[in-house]
Amino acid sequence: MAKNEARRTALADAGISVLAREGSRGLTHRAVDAAAGVPTGTTSNYFRNREALITGIFERIGTRLAPRADDLEAAAREQPSRELFTRYVRDIVRRLTTNREVTLALYELRLEAARRPELAAPLVEWQHAAFEADIAFNEAAGLPGGRREIALFHYAIEGFVFDRLTSPIDPETPADEVIDDFVAGLLR
Amino acid sequence: MAKNEARRTALADAGISVLAREGSRGLTHRAVDAAAGVPTGTTSNYFRNREALITGIFERIGTRLAPRADDLEAAAREQPSRELFTRYVRDIVRRLTTNREVTLALYELRLEAARRPELAAPLVEWQHAAFEADIAFNEAAGLPGGRREIALFHYAIEGFVFDRLTSPIDPETPADEVIDDFVAGLLR
Repeated sequence: MAKNEARRTALADAGISVLAREGSRGLTHRAVDAAAGVPTGTTSNYFRNREALITGIFERIGTRLAPRADDLEAAAREQPSRELFTRYVRDIVRRLTTNREVTLALYELRLEAARRPELAAPLVEWQHAAFEADIAFNEAAGLPGGRREIALFHYAIEGFVFDRLTSPIDPETPADEVIDDFVAGLLR
Repeated sequence: MAKNEARRTALADAGISVLAREGSRGLTHRAVDAAAGVPTGTTSNYFRNREALITGIFERIGTRLAPRADDLEAAAREQPSRELFTRYVRDIVRRLTTNREVTLALYELRLEAARRPELAAPLVEWQHAAFEADIAFNEAAGLPGGRREIALFHYAIEGFVFDRLTSPIDPETPADEVIDDFVAGLLR
């Protein structure tokens, strides 16, 4: 069972690499087998169709982009403030940009959702849960900003990270300066 | 010559459709021939390799997403104000979301640039020209906001439109409300 779980995770990671390297159209069970270096048919045993494979990849993306538990605990011991909120946002951007492959895979899947509405449903559900969790976290931590502000930060940060990971319009400005401007403007 | 120009435009439009429908990996000369309903080999005659095809598509994307001349003229006769700036941004978002296929094609190409650095160079150049033009336009029109603010709007609007065209996290909030919030917060 533990071995199966490790194999499942390795296949999902290989799926993320395929998405980042080939785009969503390159994501096939065979391509994942090849990227993971396992016999043809292995990925099909773990994820019986493309939807199951994509769901497995979503879950893995969530895990890989999640904040570290000790970072969260350290932050939870601090007084809530705009500075703390800023540090959270900086940490999110740092995670998204350093896990470049994972973030690109997520953008690929979201673009594929625009082409295939049957994929949009599970993706919207997954994102919605993450969005609600962000709002609940912010409230529980006593941080400024509610549903409205958090939606604005989602858009701004996703657009900014998309720009930085693809073809940046203004690469000279340090990421933290951009984030500070967003916090100064968007956090009421 | 005029006929050649019309054919070239039709092929670039077919390329945009292929990108939006199939993703960047689906963009081949043959796929464009098929989408345009022309004999195999036609696209190769007009765009001798994939780079030339993509450059042709960039140009066409720029034309199709450009503001209408009469809208610009009407706006130029008004007093510059935050309200006018807001209307420009609303108009940009309206153009990006109603030209859904064109905008998705642009996101596809930008993601491909993350995978293939040789594509990033012309794309960065193309975007940079557009970014500088935006700054110059804003200044000439006497509108508030400089280089810094316009970069922030690029990120925020691209992230927002990406969200709305793919798998939206908060589809109930009208686009104009989101834009108003961005202008209120980000325009100094």
